[in-house]
Amino acid sequence: MMQKGAFMRGTDKMIVKEIPVPEIGDKEVLVSLEYVGICGSDVHYYHNGCCGAYKVDLSQDYMLGHECAGTIAKIGKDVTSLKVGDKVALEPGITCGKCEFCKSGHYNLCPDVVFLATPPVQGCNEEYMAFPEDMCFKLPDNVSTKEGALIEPLSVGFYAAEQGAVGTGDTVVILGSGCIGLVTLLACKAHGAGKIIVADLVQARLDKAMELGATAVINSGKEDALAKIRELTNGRGADVVFETAGSPVTIAQTPFIVRRGGTITLVGISAQEEISFNFAQIMDKEITIKSVFRYKNIYPKAIAAVSSGAINVKSIVTHEFDLEHIQDAYDEAVHNKTDLVKAVVKIK
Amino acid sequence: MMQKGAFMRGTDKMIVKEIPVPEIGDKEVLVSLEYVGICGSDVHYYHNGCCGAYKVDLSQDYMLGHECAGTIAKIGKDVTSLKVGDKVALEPGITCGKCEFCKSGHYNLCPDVVFLATPPVQGCNEEYMAFPEDMCFKLPDNVSTKEGALIEPLSVGFYAAEQGAVGTGDTVVILGSGCIGLVTLLACKAHGAGKIIVADLVQARLDKAMELGATAVINSGKEDALAKIRELTNGRGADVVFETAGSPVTIAQTPFIVRRGGTITLVGISAQEEISFNFAQIMDKEITIKSVFRYKNIYPKAIAAVSSGAINVKSIVTHEFDLEHIQDAYDEAVHNKTDLVKAVVKIK
Amino acid sequence: MMQKGAFMRGTDKMIVKEIPVPEIGDKEVLVSLEYVGICGSDVHYYHNGCCGAYKVDLSQDYMLGHECAGTIAKIGKDVTSLKVGDKVALEPGITCGKCEFCKSGHYNLCPDVVFLATPPVQGCNEEYMAFPEDMCFKLPDNVSTKEGALIEPLSVGFYAAEQGAVGTGDTVVILGSGCIGLVTLLACKAHGAGKIIVADLVQARLDKAMELGATAVINSGKEDALAKIRELTNGRGADVVFETAGSPVTIAQTPFIVRRGGTITLVGISAQEEISFNFAQIMDKEITIKSVFRYKNIYPKAIAAVSSGAINVKSIVTHEFDLEHIQDAYDEAVHNKTDLVKAVVKIK
Amino acid sequence: MMQKGAFMRGTDKMIVKEIPVPEIGDKEVLVSLEYVGICGSDVHYYHNGCCGAYKVDLSQDYMLGHECAGTIAKIGKDVTSLKVGDKVALEPGITCGKCEFCKSGHYNLCPDVVFLATPPVQGCNEEYMAFPEDMCFKLPDNVSTKEGALIEPLSVGFYAAEQGAVGTGDTVVILGSGCIGLVTLLACKAHGAGKIIVADLVQARLDKAMELGATAVINSGKEDALAKIRELTNGRGADVVFETAGSPVTIAQTPFIVRRGGTITLVGISAQEEISFNFAQIMDKEITIKSVFRYKNIYPKAIAAVSSGAINVKSIVTHEFDLEHIQDAYDEAVHNKTDLVKAVVKIK
Repeated sequence: MMQKGAFMRGTDKMIVKEIPVPEIGDKEVLVSLEYVGICGSDVHYYHNGCCGAYKVDLSQDYMLGHECAGTIAKIGKDVTSLKVGDKVALEPGITCGKCEFCKSGHYNLCPDVVFLATPPVQGCNEEYMAFPEDMCFKLPDNVSTKEGALIEPLSVGFYAAEQGAVGTGDTVVILGSGCIGLVTLLACKAHGAGKIIVADLVQARLDKAMELGATAVINSGKEDALAKIRELTNGRGADVVFETAGSPVTIAQTPFIVRRGGTITLVGISAQEEISFNFAQIMDKEITIKSVFRYKNIYPKAIAAVSSGAINVKSIVTHEFDLEHIQDAYDEAVHNKTDLVKAVVKIK
Repeated sequence: MMQKGAFMRGTDKMIVKEIPVPEIGDKEVLVSLEYVGICGSDVHYYHNGCCGAYKVDLSQDYMLGHECAGTIAKIGKDVTSLKVGDKVALEPGITCGKCEFCKSGHYNLCPDVVFLATPPVQGCNEEYMAFPEDMCFKLPDNVSTKEGALIEPLSVGFYAAEQGAVGTGDTVVILGSGCIGLVTLLACKAHGAGKIIVADLVQARLDKAMELGATAVINSGKEDALAKIRELTNGRGADVVFETAGSPVTIAQTPFIVRRGGTITLVGISAQEEISFNFAQIMDKEITIKSVFRYKNIYPKAIAAVSSGAINVKSIVTHEFDLEHIQDAYDEAVHNKTDLVKAVVKIK
Repeated sequence: MMQKGAFMRGTDKMIVKEIPVPEIGDKEVLVSLEYVGICGSDVHYYHNGCCGAYKVDLSQDYMLGHECAGTIAKIGKDVTSLKVGDKVALEPGITCGKCEFCKSGHYNLCPDVVFLATPPVQGCNEEYMAFPEDMCFKLPDNVSTKEGALIEPLSVGFYAAEQGAVGTGDTVVILGSGCIGLVTLLACKAHGAGKIIVADLVQARLDKAMELGATAVINSGKEDALAKIRELTNGRGADVVFETAGSPVTIAQTPFIVRRGGTITLVGISAQEEISFNFAQIMDKEITIKSVFRYKNIYPKAIAAVSSGAINVKSIVTHEFDLEHIQDAYDEAVHNKTDLVKAVVKIK
Repeated sequence: MMQKGAFMRGTDKMIVKEIPVPEIGDKEVLVSLEYVGICGSDVHYYHNGCCGAYKVDLSQDYMLGHECAGTIAKIGKDVTSLKVGDKVALEPGITCGKCEFCKSGHYNLCPDVVFLATPPVQGCNEEYMAFPEDMCFKLPDNVSTKEGALIEPLSVGFYAAEQGAVGTGDTVVILGSGCIGLVTLLACKAHGAGKIIVADLVQARLDKAMELGATAVINSGKEDALAKIRELTNGRGADVVFETAGSPVTIAQTPFIVRRGGTITLVGISAQEEISFNFAQIMDKEITIKSVFRYKNIYPKAIAAVSSGAINVKSIVTHEFDLEHIQDAYDEAVHNKTDLVKAVVKIK
């Protein structure tokens, strides 16, 4: 049996071709994919051929995509927890289960992870995918597969809120209002944050943040963000600051934003490895710094929070394309620096 | 200057009389009280003359009430954080600040606490009260003093959610749907709980729980609560179970409701000290049991959560009375076992 | 190739016979076993044919033993972290790596665990065993295989100290001074506990506790244990109480021994499922109750603590037997209720 | 009544003069001081007239010293927990007990702290001191007042071990082997650390570290510290890295020393506020950074650990002087950069 799959052929070029539907193992399911999101890393690979240290082998077609959901089409003979017709969200990082990180619950740090669309591992911009039963999370009736595909980016924000230990009633500041900033905002709200202040340079993104529930937004290009945050927190600073922009400038701002005894949570990754940072503030205020590498053990809780209505994740989608128009989708994701927050590809 | 104060004169009898407005110390404020809630402990003192080991000296008039809020009428000369006209909620337990519990943040365990309306300490059913600056928490513009008076009972539920470490997306079961069960429900919702299942014997209370955001309710008089919970959690059990009824029956049920590795949080206090309890379940499922004694460090966060809209605390009030009708208020609180969840007295 | 293996043939009867040396898989190693400890559960199976809900099929020979260590004799082709000649301790519970408990680091709760010498899974009273690479923990030069075999029971005590969150300088009370009480004592000492008070009914065990580093011991048959603990803790109670005796009497004592705000850690398993327990104390003192089901993620740390000298684990061994005298070993373990703390079988 | 007190009179000059013995309040005790340690901050004030942002008013005599212990000479009328003749260690930071930090147990962050020998607050280089009862911690019979005076610096290392959450069996690296490095070493050992690797530039200090229980030491001037640490940790890195040198060089090294998922704990304070730091490592390894500002809630535990023998704190003292020779003591502390670890002044 054949299916359609989308591949990048060199940079900035996407083709759709026929490929075989995969066979499934005894503990695997065949998922008929319905939605695949476009992540910042997908965009980097598509446009630059690389993302951080990872490089696409441009001599061959390469399939992107790792944020996906669909419906179970077939199950392996040892599968017990899923049945044909179930809607599922796929967690895209398959880990070893044997190393010290996996055993202690920190599987996001597994050195042997196989992660979709991280070269040379292929992605999921296709119609059917074979996947391990335990990495497919069943969606309740009231959660759609479009929402299911968004569980992946949401998990990063959700995990950031957990790493930052956001408590109900806390005041948080989020630096950066791109997709990751916004899912962090949604997660903080679901964790009960009291005041949520978001800063960015792009007004359209800040408007989106207000729409999604920010208490206040700051256009850092027009206002003195530090002064404004001080004012909005009555001089106290934030309980938790999230840096999601990955910029040396905002990373360097964090110690001045957080309150005495508070927590900085680093989510964004800067292209610049070394950053000048004020450690005098860290010591004087006894600040804790946490960081976020992907996520772990989030899917069931994130799905429950979407199902309960605590998180309206589909509101982050600003652009949707069919599989046939996947090149347009990726081009738009590359070039639209203003009102595109999240693009998804509807597979079928 | 004189003011009105309400006192119990023996059991089941409430009188209002003129008493002096108190002087304030240098670090105290004079609060013009606006609302005082009626707590279960107030009702016990009023009707039985005692609550647990504490007894009212019935040979004298005694003032009840410890859930209160009002407006600052005067400030002491060393007060810096509050000004006349500020709305404040009062935290009613003044602790020593010196013992190992106070120093380590567990001030709710301070052996030298002075707690309003815990004999022989007088309560706050009066017009004006002198109170330490640091125990008065300023209310934002969008939080009323009626809501302010409810911060006290809310804090118990809020602290229960913290002791139970309720996480966003968790499934929780609350046994008991009285005032404490309902504030626990509100707090769990604000902490992002996914499914919230509430069980009680009184249908009116369960209806209130549904109104406040429960996912499902169980009338334990009509249904097999354990079987129903198993069904609603797909056989897995609850991440966290809260026992708020204080009944030996429901306390004994908790190990059968919580999931493997989950947490039981005991909030209700049983009149029966010794209870037969299944420790085999505790060991086999590696259950953690947490307990709740009043609360600590909750007021600022609870106020922030009410202000942000995460908690609609005023919805728990079912009955409101003027100071002149305080006897009616207390009588209703004693006798109405059905639709009374929370009664408050409007002082002025 | 053939080897010797010891089997129970009905209750109270142990035979040694020739069996094949197993083949190893690609990710397995062949361990030449050198020491196997005798656990309380082994003794129950041997003498009673059952332990809790688990029953030995007495119509067949059954191999006991799950506390073991040895030397690598052969490695599978995909094994990378171990080589022939390495000394290793074997963690006897092989878990699925896929369920919510495994993924979140709580693998001790995995419902699909395969645990040595838990019927119908065979044990390790034999010369050679095939075992997964990731469950074999390399011993440093200064840790012997005899100590290696003791890592398993030590892990229970070590995990108990972690569940109880014993802090450096804490005062702990350990109820029960059998093997598990003593490894809990060793672990508490390594975790830095200040005062360690041990209570038991058997003087020989208490003498052993003193030898292993207890600060004080109490013979509960001769002294009022509660009064003595109160005196030894200056009326404050213990920061952490460990119940390792599994007796309804000592379980019921725990709330009276722990300090306000302290932690009870249940390690022993009572044959009696329901126990009358004073929940009034739990509520009034805001006590936390933790429980211990086997252990998780302990081996590397326990081995490091033995290697550093923080734990002198071999001092718990009171009896040692050769493989040929394994019946004597088990008989002694059944009948010696006084000075036997731990018996080990020297395989070769 | 008069007593002797030592004062700096300008920089590098110490005089002893007669001053009145203070009166005590109702909740205070009069402590007859026996030992006072010399801290790095004392040395800064003495030699430079300032320490960080704090400046001594050199126009007046100023008393240094904040690490002290002695015997109770008199008690105020409301003192209940201490009696004349009790040996006590004094915790030198008196906090407000009212702010959000004090109430939540983080009193080390109290903005209104009154800390001995932090200008303009006077120190304790004198014979008698009036001090609040709750800040005097009773020493058991087997802990001397010399050890009592060392509880203060020990508390910094003890708190560092807590902030770093050192677990039993963990591998730790300590950068810097001065007084704070060494008390961190003692604390890590008491917390059960498995391997303790210490790096410094001064061989005499490293020899001291070996004497106090380090597993291995590295002379960073002669060896490639990063390479050596990698070798000593089998390529894995440290579970916890403590930076106690306060040097931009060692602070910048920390991300390369800690293992994936590990914790950096910053203890030393750099004179240089901004430091270039590799955040790429932080993100990639999901590192946590904790910091240490003084300490909180440590004294009782540290005293218990000294009493139990878990910490041999007096072994850090290398130099001891009488009160008459206090100028020599301070001069030696300024100039001896090699074998002086800790100097104490014997008051009487």
